[in-house]
Amino acid sequence: MATETRLGGDLPVVDAETAAAGIGTEDTLLTSGFGRAGYPKALPLALAASDREFSLTVVSGGSVGDEIDTTLVEAGAVARRYPYQATASARDAVNDGSVAFHDRHISRLGDEVALGYLGGRNRENTEDGVGSGNGDGTRGETVAVVEAVAVGAGWLVPTTSVGHTPSYVQAADRIVVELNRTQPVELEALHDVYNRALPPNRGTIPLSTPGGRIGSPRVPFDPDKLEAVVETDRPDSPYEFRTPTAVDDGIAENLAGFLAGELDRNPVFADAVNLQFGVGSLGNALMSSFADVAFGDRDVAYFGEVIQDGLLDMLDDGVLDSASAASLALSAEGQERLFGDIERYAEQVVVRNADVSNSPALIDRFGVLAVNSALEVDVYGNANSTHLSGTHVANGIGGSGDFSRHSALGVLALGSTARDGAISRVVPMVPHVDHTEHDLDVVVTEQGVADLRGLAPRERARELVEQCAHPDYRGPLEAYLDRANEGGGHIPHDLEEAAAWYTR
Amino acid sequence: MATETRLGGDLPVVDAETAAAGIGTEDTLLTSGFGRAGYPKALPLALAASDREFSLTVVSGGSVGDEIDTTLVEAGAVARRYPYQATASARDAVNDGSVAFHDRHISRLGDEVALGYLGGRNRENTEDGVGSGNGDGTRGETVAVVEAVAVGAGWLVPTTSVGHTPSYVQAADRIVVELNRTQPVELEALHDVYNRALPPNRGTIPLSTPGGRIGSPRVPFDPDKLEAVVETDRPDSPYEFRTPTAVDDGIAENLAGFLAGELDRNPVFADAVNLQFGVGSLGNALMSSFADVAFGDRDVAYFGEVIQDGLLDMLDDGVLDSASAASLALSAEGQERLFGDIERYAEQVVVRNADVSNSPALIDRFGVLAVNSALEVDVYGNANSTHLSGTHVANGIGGSGDFSRHSALGVLALGSTARDGAISRVVPMVPHVDHTEHDLDVVVTEQGVADLRGLAPRERARELVEQCAHPDYRGPLEAYLDRANEGGGHIPHDLEEAAAWYTR
Repeated sequence: MATETRLGGDLPVVDAETAAAGIGTEDTLLTSGFGRAGYPKALPLALAASDREFSLTVVSGGSVGDEIDTTLVEAGAVARRYPYQATASARDAVNDGSVAFHDRHISRLGDEVALGYLGGRNRENTEDGVGSGNGDGTRGETVAVVEAVAVGAGWLVPTTSVGHTPSYVQAADRIVVELNRTQPVELEALHDVYNRALPPNRGTIPLSTPGGRIGSPRVPFDPDKLEAVVETDRPDSPYEFRTPTAVDDGIAENLAGFLAGELDRNPVFADAVNLQFGVGSLGNALMSSFADVAFGDRDVAYFGEVIQDGLLDMLDDGVLDSASAASLALSAEGQERLFGDIERYAEQVVVRNADVSNSPALIDRFGVLAVNSALEVDVYGNANSTHLSGTHVANGIGGSGDFSRHSALGVLALGSTARDGAISRVVPMVPHVDHTEHDLDVVVTEQGVADLRGLAPRERARELVEQCAHPDYRGPLEAYLDRANEGGGHIPHDLEEAAAWYTR
Repeated sequence: MATETRLGGDLPVVDAETAAAGIGTEDTLLTSGFGRAGYPKALPLALAASDREFSLTVVSGGSVGDEIDTTLVEAGAVARRYPYQATASARDAVNDGSVAFHDRHISRLGDEVALGYLGGRNRENTEDGVGSGNGDGTRGETVAVVEAVAVGAGWLVPTTSVGHTPSYVQAADRIVVELNRTQPVELEALHDVYNRALPPNRGTIPLSTPGGRIGSPRVPFDPDKLEAVVETDRPDSPYEFRTPTAVDDGIAENLAGFLAGELDRNPVFADAVNLQFGVGSLGNALMSSFADVAFGDRDVAYFGEVIQDGLLDMLDDGVLDSASAASLALSAEGQERLFGDIERYAEQVVVRNADVSNSPALIDRFGVLAVNSALEVDVYGNANSTHLSGTHVANGIGGSGDFSRHSALGVLALGSTARDGAISRVVPMVPHVDHTEHDLDVVVTEQGVADLRGLAPRERARELVEQCAHPDYRGPLEAYLDRANEGGGHIPHDLEEAAAWYTR
């Protein structure tokens, strides 16, 4: 059922300004977009250019591009934002309190939107305007704004991400589709769209292998909700991966060494290895390093959030049998490579709903080996992925909690220092916890590997400092532990000293 | 297939001392027991009375009684302990560092044992003796020590808990069964034992309703592993619930009021409500309060960890259609009530594996409404369930993380103060995080209800202080927030002030 017509049927095609005029000033926009791919561009730009005063709630699937998180935010049109942002403008607005933000677990977002936990539904009015509603507990209407390579009466084919689009068009009161003709319509060959019912009547997700297919390439929606189709030729802003640094290479080498041993001793990985890597340059660099791991005759699959360039290498090199994710977060070069040979990649690449890619149940069933990064980790194994100094958000938790909690083996990979060695990423006590000491198995830095499984907190502290901290910080960290141990306890701490670590 | 003979076949029945003589000094004991019910008693007492010097690893399903966590611990025989303890002796030994401990998520424990993440397997030797192994990375052998009302060649019927017994007998090298004749053999009518394969070949758990059955009443095991059967007539130490306090009643009233509204507006609860409550006196008191909630014609089920007396009331009052858990954690009176009418209760009560009762996938599918408690919560919605002052462990995380992360609605219920009002349970920054700000939906104290859904951190802080803090502490908490706000950020904090909250 290959789609041949991008615009199927008699649809309400309008220009972006007209579509923008239909958006209420306090509406909630549920946007496509994940891993900075497949997000709407024309409508956000038109809203930003409008002279109406907007106080929008913007709920994206995951990371989106500058049209939303720079231009629209800088226009002052965004009052609330979930669940992730990754631009300087959005970050500043969130940190100065002018945009109300909450980073949420990606796996749960579709439900949270459907149940009205976000975006103003079910919320009482609050006093200061942010979150104020229209009297009945809601804030305007809920409009899905989603990008597609093709759209018809009651269906659309997403562009470079599926993300939460299937849930969002279902939850929305109205739908605006951006038809993007610069994206190849053949992308539909990659998509596997599967809609879950809400609890308590939802069944299991019937996916039996990481690279399997359980749905269709099209996102269904109620055709009566389709308010506008806006045509656009604006491409995604492609990812730019930094050249791997010596630290990246050191982490990759230590990780590869650890995994070589683990693959041999861990029964989960006896016949198959299902991998996940966090998003970004480090994740991408680590993917490339896997060419060096001896997987033997194991089946190797990627079951993660986004497909990055390193995965294309692993597919082309024959290391990977399949790759499953919610988004294609590729560099310009990676996009060209994939777009040039979509049919071939479609034999191995699946782009899914984010509540399937990040499903706790599936991550558990597939025994995923998850590798994610963080800003810092403390000596007891708590990780801070999101808040610099505990206060200023960087991007958001994304799917890291979905994978670190439910994986068969959770690895945290990070450099031992930041800011050219000026601060240690191994600290006494993280001032914000995204992943608790109950969730982390192994820490890898360019210094070494700390296998924390089965260790009590005091043992973890010794192991982490010895194996993973930068030599310049081992002394101060050991001095901290000595002082903390004077107070005793299962997890010895000196809270004031731990706080002073950040103010010094 | 009702079991009529408690001792089926020609089994190696020995006394406890003989069985104890077969335990190696560095063995790992995988014990039955969950919610302080159904744990082995005779062998632990015999080990404690032995004059051999033991350095055992003890992995229980959940909470066990004094025979293990008082007598055996006080005998100095326990070197390592997972995943939960609830006695003064074990707590002291853990906090002074003489027993290496780690509290783990209950749902994951069966896998962690099977994969050798705990108990010394796969661990390198460490320097200081704790965790030292027998040269090949292991510490002695692994022996399942489990209580049963009946045992035969290759099967046993658990007593008052199923917990992790099915996983443990499968993972163990050898098995010692304690045949307890004081427990009614009719308990088998309650049990539903279901064994999962390890990832990546595990399927979905085929449970379609909270009160359904998918297994058998018997735990299967390899008969060649059965080393000893020890007869015992020692009962469980029954739970003692405190009389609900005025604070408990206030929390229950606020919770009931909140739920009445939520049941009406939340689509998850339109036709059915699947409840879970944390273990303990507060949980038990809250269960009783549910008699006052107008569930209308909804199906109401309990899908939780333990069955406590309050649930029997809800069953007898016709509020509950079914109750599913891993254990019967009843008072002496509750035990008498249940034991006196097992066949009738078996129509509604199911006792399961803990990796089914606490399954993230099932908690999600059933849209569980989860109510758990904590030691303290901070103004941004991070909860500390385990470590007093961040350093001294109380009991352990138990299953609270399984439920708070995966429930459709997660409620934290706790008093606004502790120690007769001398300290606030709403604090600026919890010094240990078990449940992050990403996991919590609603906080209830006897002061009020804070619905945190959709709120940004600064809004959450205002809401939590206004609605949930004790009036005596609102001023200091607001003063903290004012000072923290000077530093800006998404989650404003003054780390040194936050630490000083605990030292003052």
